[in-house]
Amino acid sequence: MEERVQISMLLDLYGELLTSKQKDIMNFYFNEDLSLSEISEINHTSRQAIYDIIKRCQKLLLDYDSKLKLLEKEKFILELKKDMETKLDSLKNEIIIDKKIKVIEDIKSIIKNI
Amino acid sequence: MEERVQISMLLDLYGELLTSKQKDIMNFYFNEDLSLSEISEINHTSRQAIYDIIKRCQKLLLDYDSKLKLLEKEKFILELKKDMETKLDSLKNEIIIDKKIKVIEDIKSIIKNI
Repeated sequence: MEERVQISMLLDLYGELLTSKQKDIMNFYFNEDLSLSEISEINHTSRQAIYDIIKRCQKLLLDYDSKLKLLEKEKFILELKKDMETKLDSLKNEIIIDKKIKVIEDIKSIIKNI
Repeated sequence: MEERVQISMLLDLYGELLTSKQKDIMNFYFNEDLSLSEISEINHTSRQAIYDIIKRCQKLLLDYDSKLKLLEKEKFILELKKDMETKLDSLKNEIIIDKKIKVIEDIKSIIKNI
């Protein structure tokens, strides 16, 4: 997975464990695609300070995920969901066929009454 | 939920965020039901030190969960699972009925051939 996408997903999962300032800076950089210079202007600080915060937070997020593994769990559940949906669609097709059989049964009952 | 049960569940969810010593002490107390005195003997420390660690870790676990809300998510998924299982069981019963209808259809075909 592209690192940028991965960090953005980790931010969704663990963002609440960062301070609100850290979370804002990470959101600006990874979700709103602002440059380091733009973020440093917003925060009235240096480009280097923003760079350091981003690097530190990236490490924090990766560290949380190496322990709680929520990203892996999320991907696993996504696979399960796809699998269940495929199985349910196939079941749906079968049930439609069975409904047709019900119609045949109705016809049969008419035949019996002849 | 009983506090003891709640902390034990939080320990499953966030235990990896504690140090291995903290996790061991919490497991002894909340999952293996050892007394403070027993744990303090194992750790060659005072009963008060163990009590302080347990209280601090309890606060840490509750703090993590107030931010990530994994316990709430876990309960929600458990409800979804129960709901899906109930719906699938009901669907299963309907399909069995439809299978019986297939038998009737076979009989019908025999009748037609008389």
